[in-house]
Amino acid sequence: MKSSRQKIVRWASGAAPSGAMDDLAVEEPLEIRVDNQRVSVTMRTPGHDDELAAGFLLGEGLIKRRAEVLKIAPYPRNNDKNVLGVFLAPDTPLDLQHLTRHFFVSSSCGLCGKASIAAVRRHFPAIKTKISVAAVVLLQLPEKLRAQQETFARTGGLHAAGLFDLTGKLIVAREDVGRHNAVDKVLGRALLNDLLPLDGHILFVSGRVSFEIVQKALAARVAVIAAVSAPTNLAVEFAQANGQTLIGFVRENRLNVYTHTRRVKFRKKS
Amino acid sequence: MKSSRQKIVRWASGAAPSGAMDDLAVEEPLEIRVDNQRVSVTMRTPGHDDELAAGFLLGEGLIKRRAEVLKIAPYPRNNDKNVLGVFLAPDTPLDLQHLTRHFFVSSSCGLCGKASIAAVRRHFPAIKTKISVAAVVLLQLPEKLRAQQETFARTGGLHAAGLFDLTGKLIVAREDVGRHNAVDKVLGRALLNDLLPLDGHILFVSGRVSFEIVQKALAARVAVIAAVSAPTNLAVEFAQANGQTLIGFVRENRLNVYTHTRRVKFRKKS
Repeated sequence: MKSSRQKIVRWASGAAPSGAMDDLAVEEPLEIRVDNQRVSVTMRTPGHDDELAAGFLLGEGLIKRRAEVLKIAPYPRNNDKNVLGVFLAPDTPLDLQHLTRHFFVSSSCGLCGKASIAAVRRHFPAIKTKISVAAVVLLQLPEKLRAQQETFARTGGLHAAGLFDLTGKLIVAREDVGRHNAVDKVLGRALLNDLLPLDGHILFVSGRVSFEIVQKALAARVAVIAAVSAPTNLAVEFAQANGQTLIGFVRENRLNVYTHTRRVKFRKKS
Repeated sequence: MKSSRQKIVRWASGAAPSGAMDDLAVEEPLEIRVDNQRVSVTMRTPGHDDELAAGFLLGEGLIKRRAEVLKIAPYPRNNDKNVLGVFLAPDTPLDLQHLTRHFFVSSSCGLCGKASIAAVRRHFPAIKTKISVAAVVLLQLPEKLRAQQETFARTGGLHAAGLFDLTGKLIVAREDVGRHNAVDKVLGRALLNDLLPLDGHILFVSGRVSFEIVQKALAARVAVIAAVSAPTNLAVEFAQANGQTLIGFVRENRLNVYTHTRRVKFRKKS
């Protein structure tokens, strides 16, 4: 159930208000436990929770490969399936003190964007792949992603993320009330399908690009990140420092390339 | 500094790519400490950090009134001003185990939307005020908020929130890379100006409405919440349970009312 029906009052100026039924995007809390230790509670759109957990742990640096995950399953004592257990392979170290989001906090030089980038970088090396993607392929991504957004079409309430190959073929698309969750689900699906590293893929998101989005992409080794809207300065600095090509404002017939432009081919091969 | 200039490559299909300068929304980490204890690290747009901290602590249930805050100041040892200290009045209890976002986790009936609402409700009573607002006033809010969004106009990268009185007069507007941060800054400003409770005000946000937005509004006693986009099902259930009027899709000449419709007056007084 990704949407829920609700009685509302609709009004347009000049007319009388009228009752109507409306579809709402569903939001529920999810608690993620790793080997029975509570790691996170997040509000999310229910569904694909195993992907959300796998992608979240990937981004946090706790897991890197499919083989490290033994099992992902809801705890039976929670009837709403809102408590999810991840069980790691016996030889996988579990160091909850080293969650990625703790890296920049404990950085000795103090808290700033530069320290955040340096701290994450210690755990995920920069990307050096020589792949390229045609600019015309990038222009097709918004429409291809929108075609998959069933719930958004009904509710107007969801973010979306999609993973594409370099020819623009969709691998997986996910929607969520949380922008980061949609990215976690997509990257988690790729991890569970043993598709990592993703240096031959494009991550495309429906909204803006923050530091956390490019950081999650780096954990999955994504070399090309594109978005409908703007990146932040820190997302751009992070992508620059880590060899990621970052593209924004992909709309209709135009786009902006912020970093590592060499991977984008503008000319038609004729 | 709310934006940062960056060299980019701009391309429109059919033309040659060209270099250009672009303005980016700035994102930096902020650590909030209360009486020297670390409470939170969040990525935010620098500026109005005292408001962000005050609003965050209000939403978490740690403070309720201006008088409980002795001082808010950056720690001098962090040159980037990204570590902020909040010092509470001596008689203000500080129980970090009872942060609002921990409420629903420790709820005994398990983790679900209903439990989340019940858990928050134990700390913030429902709103019963009899105020009302004219629907035509609500229709003016998007344009009034946009007029304040200087950084968004340049960067396309920021969320916005605004506090208005019942005649549609703007009290305070804030932008941030994080949707919740913009709300925290607005409500934090109101707390610091000793304007709480806000049951004679409207909180208006530029994007979607999640559970956390209506929960923060409840902590500040906001009775009317309006937004440009859709609410989630849990936001609607929360507003319904707590006496808040929730309005979505406020665009041009139309809007949807999801809960407590009695506070919205559709007819013109003539």
